[in-house]
Amino acid sequence: MYSTLKKHTYILLDPSEGGSFWDKLIDGFIISLILLNVIAVIFETVDSLFLAYGSLFKAFEIFSVCFFTLEYVLRVWTCTYIDKFKHPVTGRLRYIFSFGSLIDLLAIVPFYLPLSTIYDFRFVRVFRLIRFLRVFKLGRYLNATRIISNVFKSKKEELVLCLVITLTLIVVASSLMYFVEHDAQPDKFSSIPETMWWSVTTLTTVGYGDVFPITGLGRILTACISILGIGMFALPAGILASGFSAEFQKLKKEKNTCPHCGKELTNKE
Amino acid sequence: MYSTLKKHTYILLDPSEGGSFWDKLIDGFIISLILLNVIAVIFETVDSLFLAYGSLFKAFEIFSVCFFTLEYVLRVWTCTYIDKFKHPVTGRLRYIFSFGSLIDLLAIVPFYLPLSTIYDFRFVRVFRLIRFLRVFKLGRYLNATRIISNVFKSKKEELVLCLVITLTLIVVASSLMYFVEHDAQPDKFSSIPETMWWSVTTLTTVGYGDVFPITGLGRILTACISILGIGMFALPAGILASGFSAEFQKLKKEKNTCPHCGKELTNKE
Amino acid sequence: MYSTLKKHTYILLDPSEGGSFWDKLIDGFIISLILLNVIAVIFETVDSLFLAYGSLFKAFEIFSVCFFTLEYVLRVWTCTYIDKFKHPVTGRLRYIFSFGSLIDLLAIVPFYLPLSTIYDFRFVRVFRLIRFLRVFKLGRYLNATRIISNVFKSKKEELVLCLVITLTLIVVASSLMYFVEHDAQPDKFSSIPETMWWSVTTLTTVGYGDVFPITGLGRILTACISILGIGMFALPAGILASGFSAEFQKLKKEKNTCPHCGKELTNKE
Amino acid sequence: MYSTLKKHTYILLDPSEGGSFWDKLIDGFIISLILLNVIAVIFETVDSLFLAYGSLFKAFEIFSVCFFTLEYVLRVWTCTYIDKFKHPVTGRLRYIFSFGSLIDLLAIVPFYLPLSTIYDFRFVRVFRLIRFLRVFKLGRYLNATRIISNVFKSKKEELVLCLVITLTLIVVASSLMYFVEHDAQPDKFSSIPETMWWSVTTLTTVGYGDVFPITGLGRILTACISILGIGMFALPAGILASGFSAEFQKLKKEKNTCPHCGKELTNKE
Repeated sequence: MYSTLKKHTYILLDPSEGGSFWDKLIDGFIISLILLNVIAVIFETVDSLFLAYGSLFKAFEIFSVCFFTLEYVLRVWTCTYIDKFKHPVTGRLRYIFSFGSLIDLLAIVPFYLPLSTIYDFRFVRVFRLIRFLRVFKLGRYLNATRIISNVFKSKKEELVLCLVITLTLIVVASSLMYFVEHDAQPDKFSSIPETMWWSVTTLTTVGYGDVFPITGLGRILTACISILGIGMFALPAGILASGFSAEFQKLKKEKNTCPHCGKELTNKE
Repeated sequence: MYSTLKKHTYILLDPSEGGSFWDKLIDGFIISLILLNVIAVIFETVDSLFLAYGSLFKAFEIFSVCFFTLEYVLRVWTCTYIDKFKHPVTGRLRYIFSFGSLIDLLAIVPFYLPLSTIYDFRFVRVFRLIRFLRVFKLGRYLNATRIISNVFKSKKEELVLCLVITLTLIVVASSLMYFVEHDAQPDKFSSIPETMWWSVTTLTTVGYGDVFPITGLGRILTACISILGIGMFALPAGILASGFSAEFQKLKKEKNTCPHCGKELTNKE
Repeated sequence: MYSTLKKHTYILLDPSEGGSFWDKLIDGFIISLILLNVIAVIFETVDSLFLAYGSLFKAFEIFSVCFFTLEYVLRVWTCTYIDKFKHPVTGRLRYIFSFGSLIDLLAIVPFYLPLSTIYDFRFVRVFRLIRFLRVFKLGRYLNATRIISNVFKSKKEELVLCLVITLTLIVVASSLMYFVEHDAQPDKFSSIPETMWWSVTTLTTVGYGDVFPITGLGRILTACISILGIGMFALPAGILASGFSAEFQKLKKEKNTCPHCGKELTNKE
Repeated sequence: MYSTLKKHTYILLDPSEGGSFWDKLIDGFIISLILLNVIAVIFETVDSLFLAYGSLFKAFEIFSVCFFTLEYVLRVWTCTYIDKFKHPVTGRLRYIFSFGSLIDLLAIVPFYLPLSTIYDFRFVRVFRLIRFLRVFKLGRYLNATRIISNVFKSKKEELVLCLVITLTLIVVASSLMYFVEHDAQPDKFSSIPETMWWSVTTLTTVGYGDVFPITGLGRILTACISILGIGMFALPAGILASGFSAEFQKLKKEKNTCPHCGKELTNKE
């Protein structure tokens, strides 16, 4: 009976299992509570709203943390239902240290720490939004989520290389710019780490306009960097485009063609 | 005879039907009037032009609204000619509440309301521009319109997921930035909703330069966000690229290859 | 003999014909002179350089215009050598009104007009740069030029539609923004044409930072516009990507496969 | 024995050869020292850090330069081990003037010059970062590096043409803008080279906001330029996307299909 209760609790809490009215109600309630929490964290920071509805925000926070604590305890209790976390002690520990669980824990722990009165950790509740993203693994977005994550997985090395090239470019550009522009604007290009701020805002074409070169050489360098910045956009776009093409072709092939002769099995696409 | 008149009126008003001189004249007149209306709305707001030609703008507005009202009434009257809106009452109601008709209604209604003297609703006439876009469904752009809308339809879920990831990133980045930068610039990063303005202008690489971080940690966070911003450009570009590739290949296949053996039927491409 | 002289002159002037030492010398000289002219036009506008080397600039201008006038006259004289412009009168007239010839004429005419002393038309010489681009139609860039122009030709309608959507978005966004932000910043959002300046700098993610909304609604609208701005980058990128893929596949197929069975003729790629 | 020592030294220094404990230790040490050098160059420029740890930075610089000088000498000595640089004199000279060796030399030479006391050349050590990039040619990123460099090689001509079109656009836009905006803002659009700064920041959508047009015509020109700027992003993105697609398809084909009948040899992808 104890085991049946655990199984039922597990199915109730897991959005990907069970399809009864209560399953859907609990799942919907958890998702709504996550979204409401995020909205509460966001609007709590608006002084006028906090002054007017401070006690309401506080009450909602206490309720949420209580609910999420209960949910967390139940999840840790029932996780042994999954084969991966079967062992009552080591399985549970591995569950606790899984990425999803740590985010769940992170969202409730600051509330219980005396620290939270000294320093403000309420904003960690926003990380629950990452859990909200997991909702897309279900239902009609399952396919899209799988395609996007497959593309990122299959092109991971190329994308990491893009990032390394970008970072190298930022370091080299900052060093050059520092020695070119330091004398003309010693306050804005005061050191290489300071100049990196300029490199980042230029290479990503954000261009706030708080730091920009005024010397001729500095401007020529900026021209080179920002034209290379175009390449930094084109490179990952090209990699992802080819990744998506390959992924969609694979999906289509799986559906439509015979693996032996390559001929289409149906005419509809 | 009443039915024939209705049919002729319908054909006269519908740009996709009829090819006689009068059909083309009426269609061209409606399209020109839409464009002139948009131009009028735009230039009416320039004070110097309004002072000089105010009565002309007014006269043109009265004329346009009269014409579009007549057109609207005739369309509602003749819509029963289409099978979809066949029923004189429910069909007409369904026609009135269709997207295109509501835009037509929205563009003429403010003129008749006393409200328009209190608050200015003339700008809703700009929405007629959306109707102007429907012109591209005809003629030589029909194919291009169909391809673009097909790609958006087939990749809808991936694009929605992109949007959700972007919004999540904006919320998470704003929350982090608020707690990092609030103490240094309490006036600019006064609350999370306020900080979202910074997130949006940074992630989309617009970078107006009215809000930017000044602390070291805030700048490192900005660097991460704006490099992720590159990804936010690359992701939809990649998805759409693969969508267009698939769409054009499908079109080519339909034209050139035998659906059974996959061999080309003609050599020309 | 007259005809032989004409033929030799034609071959000397046309960069795509003839391969003798003198052909290459003349072609190289014309290209160098075009580039030097562009450089002269650019640096003439720098006051300090113009004061120091004004007479040199003037002398170079006189020399260039004389040379280009001679070249233009010789080209008009020899153009009848080409079949397309065979007729001595109508052929020559058609040659004169061809795009390339008009640019050549435009670059020398301002010098002879008394107007040039009143208003400054020297900058039209910069348009010779367009003629310089034609150099890429030759030699090793011929293939690349053909591919890029083929892609633009084959995807012309989709790209035009992109442009129309962009312009519509600019008009609609400007109208909405004007009515949202006009009261808060009457000097910056003074009229819809004025607001279009904001739309353009936001949608293209340039973001100079001279005009930006300060009201909450205006900022939400900006967020929507700039996220749509990402789409405005992704759409043409996707269209061109699929265009290039199709173009390169076509090139590969032409080289490597039998048009009847689709099998590869060589293993090398 | 002399030859064996040379061989062992060569293998010890070359990261792509040898797999013993000492090989990996030396390679890891060199890579760490390069990264530490880059970090030192970056943080040396922060005044507060330099004041506090100046002697430490100096000591580390002396140690690094000694080590890299020793490494350089050993590399020049052992380079004859490679067939390409076999000849003791001409081979060594060719090795010294290879790209990688020149960067190595550039990073140590300023230290020995009396010049370095007059003018600061320490920043050239940052170029060692380029050597760090070569690390990616090894191990798990080898494939990704090869794909990216193959794509750039195969699409080199198209990308060069993109760059030429971009530069032409910058020159033409600057010339037009100078003649349009010079009278309104003689200090900001003082000459065409000065106006090029505006062109670059606009076309690359950086938009610092230090220079922007204020006249109506200037703004219309900016709108055209920045919409063309979207194309300047889409063009290389499209070229690279098709390049990556072709490259990945080639890789897949090499693995999975028979080169004679085009049928798949295995079903797994």
